[in-house]
Amino acid sequence: MSPDVLVGPGDDSAVVRFGKQHLVVSVDAQLEGVHFRLPWLSPVALGRRSYHVSVSDLAAMGARPRWLVVHYTVPPGFPVASLHAIQRGLVDEAKVFGSVLIGGNLSRGRQLGIVITVFGTQSSHPVTRAGARPGDCLFVSGTLGDAASAVRAWKRGKQPSAPLQRRFARPTARLALGQRLARRGLATAMIDVSDGLVQDLGHLCRASKVGAVVNSTSLPLSAAYQRANHGDPKLALSGGEDYELLCAIPESKVKQVRQLVRGVGCDMTLIGRFTSGRRVRVVGATNPGGTGFDHFQF
Amino acid sequence: MSPDVLVGPGDDSAVVRFGKQHLVVSVDAQLEGVHFRLPWLSPVALGRRSYHVSVSDLAAMGARPRWLVVHYTVPPGFPVASLHAIQRGLVDEAKVFGSVLIGGNLSRGRQLGIVITVFGTQSSHPVTRAGARPGDCLFVSGTLGDAASAVRAWKRGKQPSAPLQRRFARPTARLALGQRLARRGLATAMIDVSDGLVQDLGHLCRASKVGAVVNSTSLPLSAAYQRANHGDPKLALSGGEDYELLCAIPESKVKQVRQLVRGVGCDMTLIGRFTSGRRVRVVGATNPGGTGFDHFQF
Repeated sequence: MSPDVLVGPGDDSAVVRFGKQHLVVSVDAQLEGVHFRLPWLSPVALGRRSYHVSVSDLAAMGARPRWLVVHYTVPPGFPVASLHAIQRGLVDEAKVFGSVLIGGNLSRGRQLGIVITVFGTQSSHPVTRAGARPGDCLFVSGTLGDAASAVRAWKRGKQPSAPLQRRFARPTARLALGQRLARRGLATAMIDVSDGLVQDLGHLCRASKVGAVVNSTSLPLSAAYQRANHGDPKLALSGGEDYELLCAIPESKVKQVRQLVRGVGCDMTLIGRFTSGRRVRVVGATNPGGTGFDHFQF
Repeated sequence: MSPDVLVGPGDDSAVVRFGKQHLVVSVDAQLEGVHFRLPWLSPVALGRRSYHVSVSDLAAMGARPRWLVVHYTVPPGFPVASLHAIQRGLVDEAKVFGSVLIGGNLSRGRQLGIVITVFGTQSSHPVTRAGARPGDCLFVSGTLGDAASAVRAWKRGKQPSAPLQRRFARPTARLALGQRLARRGLATAMIDVSDGLVQDLGHLCRASKVGAVVNSTSLPLSAAYQRANHGDPKLALSGGEDYELLCAIPESKVKQVRQLVRGVGCDMTLIGRFTSGRRVRVVGATNPGGTGFDHFQF
């Protein structure tokens, strides 16, 4: 890898030295039938969602998204008006968060696809996945499992409750939080939760060469999630599409983190610890529904 | 559009101010069944081809490609070894031209797709599509219609000749040529020929608010093209996939351009003139096969 590449493939984003600055880059896709189905959300909401899904990887480095380019794959017969609506959702949401769509391209294809490359700047060192140390506290932002609960309902032919639908249609990339954690040097490692808590925690642990223990009774669960899952934390542990930040915070910085979140507008919850082993363990789960698990190992 | 965006959507690449430098960005896709078919080229060749197709848009701005990110869409059952071979072709070809693949992503999907975003630097002002003036000379690099002749043969179930196949499998983005034309301020407008000469000339003319007249007897045609087309220039005018540079050169700079091409390793041919109208006209075509056309208008 050439010397101007500070972070190459395998982390949330790539980071290259550009003049005196860092350029932070990530690419992400939303494919119909894979990441979403058309009846689940309006075209405008799809555009908005696509923005957050792409910039979430920059949030996880502590970077600020500045510019985007998009490639659309459009199946035959897809309404032009819907394509315009997707683009409008993307452009408008980008604007709200201080980013600009600067280019795009379009191909015919068999399924609707939106591939976005986002690049931004960083005023601090990038926070990678590799840096967590045994003893660090494991924090997660927001709540977990809401979007996955919505997807499960849709796949069963049911209508999810409005708060769950909203969390799928409009995940909020934790940009301000990630930037502040990075700038103040509070997080030793970060990743965004897109594949599910346990899986993404596994990525982080592998990169950091540590293990972790998660206390499932501490998971931040929304009221809507609790209702839909009868209190079972399983989907919050394994479901994807959360786009929350998972961070390793040294014990000595926890107080500062608690102060910081007040100004950011999203909670952070202590859900476990990093350990010296290489395993990710989930402990403490008791399912009021009856099928509770304990020391559930992945 | 924000003030740091120097060239926004609608040109070959976007250009943004980044610190004291210009960052030049473009996105392009190669989709199976749309841009290529699997039997037409080996996985390694597909990776190589994808590199040139993406950086060609940077060549047309006079920029130097530095970094790439790629998103693969992979259909069920697609061999992992083939995916690795595509990646190897892409990475190795990038290296040859001084670029580095810094990140990537992969989704399941219904058809093989390779979406590449490339970004690079520029030591001169970007040469956009808008800048050609009436009276400027119309030059094109290399030869035209070779790749389109190969595609036509394949679609008819025939085997194209080796030189035509090679031109499809390994187009050569005119990076050195584009950079020198830009740096020395020789071209008033540029575009790369990906959709076919007449169509891309139309894009350039619209952006520049000029017209053009092309002399079809002046088109640079390879010996292999001549054989496959019995001398008919039609496919060189309308076929795509050439990835040659189409440039507007003021009369006063033509001598310098002729000197410059000697050091670059590809020819440039004078094929017409820009005019004050808004039309693209093709004149002078005589088809030895008999169906010749004259003043063929698009």
